[in-house]
Amino acid sequence: MKAEIIAVGSELLTPFRQDTNSLYLTERLNDIGVEVTFKTIVGDTREHLVQVASVALSRADIVLFMGGLGPTEDDCTREAVAEALGLELRRDPNIVAGIERRFAVRGWKMTANNAKQGDVIAGATVLPNAKGTAPGQWIAGRYEGQEKIILLLPGPPHELKALFEEQCWERLRSKLPPQFIVRRELKVTGLGESHCDARVAPIYQRFPDVQTTILAAAGEIQLHLQCRADSRAAAQQRVDALVSEIEDELGDSVFSDNGDSMEQIVGYYLEMRNKTLAVAESCTGGLVAERITSVSGSSRYFVGGAIVYSNSLKTALAGVPAQLIEKYGAVSREVAAALAEGIRQRSEANLGLALTGIAGPTGGTAEKPVGLVFHALAGDRSTEVVERRFPGDRRLIRWFASQQALDMVRRTLL
Amino acid sequence: MKAEIIAVGSELLTPFRQDTNSLYLTERLNDIGVEVTFKTIVGDTREHLVQVASVALSRADIVLFMGGLGPTEDDCTREAVAEALGLELRRDPNIVAGIERRFAVRGWKMTANNAKQGDVIAGATVLPNAKGTAPGQWIAGRYEGQEKIILLLPGPPHELKALFEEQCWERLRSKLPPQFIVRRELKVTGLGESHCDARVAPIYQRFPDVQTTILAAAGEIQLHLQCRADSRAAAQQRVDALVSEIEDELGDSVFSDNGDSMEQIVGYYLEMRNKTLAVAESCTGGLVAERITSVSGSSRYFVGGAIVYSNSLKTALAGVPAQLIEKYGAVSREVAAALAEGIRQRSEANLGLALTGIAGPTGGTAEKPVGLVFHALAGDRSTEVVERRFPGDRRLIRWFASQQALDMVRRTLL
Repeated sequence: MKAEIIAVGSELLTPFRQDTNSLYLTERLNDIGVEVTFKTIVGDTREHLVQVASVALSRADIVLFMGGLGPTEDDCTREAVAEALGLELRRDPNIVAGIERRFAVRGWKMTANNAKQGDVIAGATVLPNAKGTAPGQWIAGRYEGQEKIILLLPGPPHELKALFEEQCWERLRSKLPPQFIVRRELKVTGLGESHCDARVAPIYQRFPDVQTTILAAAGEIQLHLQCRADSRAAAQQRVDALVSEIEDELGDSVFSDNGDSMEQIVGYYLEMRNKTLAVAESCTGGLVAERITSVSGSSRYFVGGAIVYSNSLKTALAGVPAQLIEKYGAVSREVAAALAEGIRQRSEANLGLALTGIAGPTGGTAEKPVGLVFHALAGDRSTEVVERRFPGDRRLIRWFASQQALDMVRRTLL
Repeated sequence: MKAEIIAVGSELLTPFRQDTNSLYLTERLNDIGVEVTFKTIVGDTREHLVQVASVALSRADIVLFMGGLGPTEDDCTREAVAEALGLELRRDPNIVAGIERRFAVRGWKMTANNAKQGDVIAGATVLPNAKGTAPGQWIAGRYEGQEKIILLLPGPPHELKALFEEQCWERLRSKLPPQFIVRRELKVTGLGESHCDARVAPIYQRFPDVQTTILAAAGEIQLHLQCRADSRAAAQQRVDALVSEIEDELGDSVFSDNGDSMEQIVGYYLEMRNKTLAVAESCTGGLVAERITSVSGSSRYFVGGAIVYSNSLKTALAGVPAQLIEKYGAVSREVAAALAEGIRQRSEANLGLALTGIAGPTGGTAEKPVGLVFHALAGDRSTEVVERRFPGDRRLIRWFASQQALDMVRRTLL
């Protein structure tokens, strides 16, 4: 079964706003074996919408419209889909009465324009919207002799998700052949995309029944594995077997085999090993700490640290001798190590993590170019320092540096 | 003139990836008076691509394809567009030689599949790609008797932007009637969306020639104003007049009238007033510092600070007496003030900014619920403390708190 998702709304054709609902819908449709083959974005213009609806009905089995169900003049998804299908709209007095009650509860009187939200395409099943006024509609229709399922869904993400989850997904699944789909996500760091692919391609090519998608993100590579089989156990077995072979090949470059983020993984390891961490950040300016503390419960293993942007704070908060900074420069192996050791001592944490580097775009020299970052991790026995040169702009350099720093903690605790 | 943007790539039909190039292209097309009326996302399937190309050619004057120009078997945008237009593909030996040289520079031999990147649609102008191997193509074609402009652009954002900016925008502009479009963006904080709209709607309704779009983002409201007129001066005058009236109405709730971020604005004010800032963050865990230091040049006014996640670091790094924490609790007006004053003193900055609160989802009590945050700003004469209760999840609460904290600095320096 093939689906087309249509996002309706003139704001989605401006430089400021983007459809995001379709990512959620795609995931849930894939879960029941439905492939999304086209996505279309169209404004609140009836003529355009009729045209888009006709094209979609001619090329997909399931057509999902999102948005354009509100009360304003602009909202014309109902009218356009009815026109494309050659069906009539009928106003349902029960829906209108429900909207009136919704207004009355708040002490308001329903304005006349709201009544159009009670217009139902002939033969459609009305899908009540618990989170908003405009109900959805489910139409089992025919187009050019073919059976089609057409869904009209509200645009606001929380309304759409609640409505689709509670009233569409199971109904859709029951109309399709049973599907057993298992997915897993591996995350890899420290390898380039082409290098990673060269090592894993010979493996996943032996699993033609597992769909493997490799995506490069900043500082990590994501491998999405998906298998469809006659039973859940069979699909799970194939995905797990492929995961296991990839993990054998890539070793500890794989930092997650269930989609967890680097900061979550570092948290798991710190908690498992009963260790605490403190940071001293220069070029990343708080990014490493912000990532660590984005995880709920991080106070169990993260004590805090210092943002040592100025040289004087490197001394005041992390105890780095001013002479050391003068001798080697703030961006140096020596100062990175002193920062890590200093913050570990001041905070009484088990591990002290430090970064100093040049995020750019200014401040680079021939000897110490933009992108040069020293990462240091101090433990009770020794301090490890890693020097890296990252490509990209300020934002990317800072992100790469934070990823490398967190990965040092992970590798130390493996 | 109407444009359709087509994003090509099977990964864009998964739950993991989304087209973002179209936002940039839409902005640049709007700049020259071209409206984007449809966006389509299609996989690397030749049959689907030909179908999408034909539909787009029948309904738009300018059709922009992004992606599918690479060397792999999957990449078939060139072939599909040629088929839809009924034109031939011809291999250009100069392009192939160029790709061979690109490989040779790195000491590699070009593999055979790369040669297809030299295939050019008959009559197309080749657009060299300075940042990648696959060149773009510009086709002035006809479809169903109508003149069309068709652009084939590479998918990677940095390649697409460089190529479109340098080789397409001016060429496109020269073919269109002159347009004078002026845009400005106001940013507002501290007001709800409906409250803001209620106050500004009576104003912008008196400027029907200025298109006003109000968008709510976390912790701020963006007002996008755009005017098209017979001359740049006339358009500028109308937009500026509207900006001025909105600023009169909203006062210092408007923090930016040129689209700058809160962290940029805070940076401008600190530099203008010749002041330095230090932070002590508990619940935000480094987010405020990360935002401040995301701005290049922030070392001129930001010295750093402390992430005082544990109580003992509140004492060790910001000098907050342990008894104060014991008496009032870490999340309290008193501890916030002491953190701000303590970090100001330790860092010798002019201003000390501090946050302590409960980001959740756990850790809340009836008296101190999730979302409660105390913000403090210490200067040379006094310390201001603001108590807020933010809605939303951990991520949103931290973001709202960082925005409120930065806004305190801004308002103090106004």
